[in-house]
Amino acid sequence: MPDRKAARAVPSETPLVPRDADFEARCRASFARQGFMTLIGAEMISLSPGHCAIAIAAKPELCQQRGFLHGGVTAAIADSAAGYAAYTLMPAGSTPLTVEFKINLLAPAVGERFVAIGKVVRSGRTLSVVEVEVTAQAGNSVKPIARSLGTLMCIENTSDGPAPQGASG
Amino acid sequence: MPDRKAARAVPSETPLVPRDADFEARCRASFARQGFMTLIGAEMISLSPGHCAIAIAAKPELCQQRGFLHGGVTAAIADSAAGYAAYTLMPAGSTPLTVEFKINLLAPAVGERFVAIGKVVRSGRTLSVVEVEVTAQAGNSVKPIARSLGTLMCIENTSDGPAPQGASG
Amino acid sequence: MPDRKAARAVPSETPLVPRDADFEARCRASFARQGFMTLIGAEMISLSPGHCAIAIAAKPELCQQRGFLHGGVTAAIADSAAGYAAYTLMPAGSTPLTVEFKINLLAPAVGERFVAIGKVVRSGRTLSVVEVEVTAQAGNSVKPIARSLGTLMCIENTSDGPAPQGASG
Amino acid sequence: MPDRKAARAVPSETPLVPRDADFEARCRASFARQGFMTLIGAEMISLSPGHCAIAIAAKPELCQQRGFLHGGVTAAIADSAAGYAAYTLMPAGSTPLTVEFKINLLAPAVGERFVAIGKVVRSGRTLSVVEVEVTAQAGNSVKPIARSLGTLMCIENTSDGPAPQGASG
Repeated sequence: MPDRKAARAVPSETPLVPRDADFEARCRASFARQGFMTLIGAEMISLSPGHCAIAIAAKPELCQQRGFLHGGVTAAIADSAAGYAAYTLMPAGSTPLTVEFKINLLAPAVGERFVAIGKVVRSGRTLSVVEVEVTAQAGNSVKPIARSLGTLMCIENTSDGPAPQGASG
Repeated sequence: MPDRKAARAVPSETPLVPRDADFEARCRASFARQGFMTLIGAEMISLSPGHCAIAIAAKPELCQQRGFLHGGVTAAIADSAAGYAAYTLMPAGSTPLTVEFKINLLAPAVGERFVAIGKVVRSGRTLSVVEVEVTAQAGNSVKPIARSLGTLMCIENTSDGPAPQGASG
Repeated sequence: MPDRKAARAVPSETPLVPRDADFEARCRASFARQGFMTLIGAEMISLSPGHCAIAIAAKPELCQQRGFLHGGVTAAIADSAAGYAAYTLMPAGSTPLTVEFKINLLAPAVGERFVAIGKVVRSGRTLSVVEVEVTAQAGNSVKPIARSLGTLMCIENTSDGPAPQGASG
Repeated sequence: MPDRKAARAVPSETPLVPRDADFEARCRASFARQGFMTLIGAEMISLSPGHCAIAIAAKPELCQQRGFLHGGVTAAIADSAAGYAAYTLMPAGSTPLTVEFKINLLAPAVGERFVAIGKVVRSGRTLSVVEVEVTAQAGNSVKPIARSLGTLMCIENTSDGPAPQGASG
């Protein structure tokens, strides 16, 4: 039946082809410059076209008042995973900008390690849409703790390095 | 004209009356337990029924690759400002939970100091809706850098202190 | 390597078991009472535990100024698909309430038919989180045009029928 | 005290100056082409630079299963109010595109009339951010029922009229 077919229709995934063969070195160098990811001990544990995974270990100084991972930390690794998933597909000489994101916290963030996996849903010339799943891992258990959906912008012909008027200056 | 009137109609602000006379001590003690707010040097600089302001100073270790404040840090102070704005109106013996939030980053986060001001838009028995504005301050300039809108849940009869199975051990 | 493993870790899908054996009749009867879904010619073309698909045919009166499907119509079928996907898992005697949702419009909504497929991401006693994909279909092509992520609340012991003070009364 | 000052700091509103003196005629003509706004009986009741109000009267065919205004209709008038608030500030020869929006439904949408008021929070060359408040009005009462926050894109040198391959064709 057409209705059944329509209800099951799965859009064919558009292959995500990087416009910059050197995307991996560029993304990893950019991530290494994120002072905040260093502060929280985040690692980029996987990177491929349209995909990025970032992990952190549980630490008391990353928690909120009850001892769960602070929602802001969950949002931060989700934001970086989204940003670099999108940046893999951006051209050389560009820099990514988070326009906005929305995050649902699905369960208390309790575990030994937290992993945010970003996946590009749409990659346009100017805007990209990325969804992220964050999981809490402990032993062999993997539990989803957050889901986000956000928009990034590609700023072309702009350095991804420190801006002259940077806050750190 | 009715149309003109309707177009300008401003809903009368419902007065936000705390259900717990001791809300301030409870909120400040809870904030003091947020290890992550301590890590980034966040201060609760204002608290009143339905309102909370949290500030941080610019530091390289809070930045992203270009030297702007990391979007995750902006989201984190917005999340805490929203949480405590809502928590001021929750009863004694409860704990707040962020269900979700959405944040728009309006401008590069450059400045000496960043302030997130949370304001309760709706305070229900179970759910609260809070909007937050984050500004970057430098000298006398105050520039909006982010706006968020989120949902919090009140968990009654639950300790706001460390959970037995907390990530912090 | 553990990192590789973590980066690929896919959380085991929790089986979605309806708490009301009669969920399908209840959901379809509720959908049939949505005057607005009737107005736009929406059909519920698929329903199973934690899943719902709603379809509409393209019509000029559902469009915006350029002849694309109005974003509000895309949001409306996404909202109903999310609501009924969540409602399949709610107990008898309850009614669903949309707390909030966020939607990204991925591409111009052009096609013969539009299908919103809602899938429950988290089903809690009070709150459910649902993601929705909306596609535009024309001939054999199926193109994603929107993605949404939202939160629904289960109101127990409350009629899902017309409220005494309902706007329609 | 600096802290008190910072906590109260209100950013000076940037004056919203239209780039097209003829913005009002352009926006009203565009709104008049939205077949869907006509279908639901929506009126643009106020328009000024960075601001737009859209109203509808309560009707059973705009409701959900309980007789409240359907969340999709609330989202639709919020989307159009946001779009035209942003479009007032866009140049001649451009067309607005909704990138994404997030909406919180604050209270059951019950009333005689519903008004969505969009206000531009940020107006950039490419992206605008708009917040919307939707109220339910009955007699002299005005009750907030929804709040949204969204992002729009300005597409320059593109007709705001029917696209050749429009869904309505």
